Amino acid sequence: MIQNPVVRMAELEIVAQRLEAYRALLAEEIEASVALEEGVLSLSAVSIREAPNHIRILEVYASQAAYEAHLRTPHFLKYKKETAGMVMSLTLVDVDPIVMRAKR
Amino acid sequence: MIQNPVVRMAELEIVAQRLEAYRALLAEEIEASVALEEGVLSLSAVSIREAPNHIRILEVYASQAAYEAHLRTPHFLKYKKETAGMVMSLTLVDVDPIVMRAKR
Repeated sequence: MIQNPVVRMAELEIVAQRLEAYRALLAEEIEASVALEEGVLSLSAVSIREAPNHIRILEVYASQAAYEAHLRTPHFLKYKKETAGMVMSLTLVDVDPIVMRAKR
Repeated sequence: MIQNPVVRMAELEIVAQRLEAYRALLAEEIEASVALEEGVLSLSAVSIREAPNHIRILEVYASQAAYEAHLRTPHFLKYKKETAGMVMSLTLVDVDPIVMRAKR
């Protein structure tokens, strides 16, 4: 069991004309993060159906240290750099888990 | 692989004085749903830190049929009935997955 997970919800608005490129970079970053980083427990990115350039990402890290390490990885830094001109707004919402369950 | 998952984000505002009771009922419902229903893939409930009676639930079902079956289960019906007086507002946001990854 994870003692003190860090959970966050990111809310992004993407430049509509860059949405396809943004989605590809996001997918690449998420796949690398969960595959390569022990402390990245899950990353779930969805788009709002009525406004597909509005993205929500539920992020679960094993600890604050794991989250901070994530911010220094080459794949995250590449994502931040390459998507910089695509993101119109980014809001990071601190949240606390109530219960999170998934099929094994 | 799941072919056509149904993904939704529920946004709830709970009567602050009933929050503790609501959270217990929600946790019970989520645990039962993921444990007992083949088609409930994950349910992740979090509260907004700055406004803990604001709840977000990311829901992933294997199919539309699995989602509809979920709505008829005894544990979901019990949750709906017992929390009816606790929920000030409920918004169901249809979303589409971009990429969702979790540690095995």
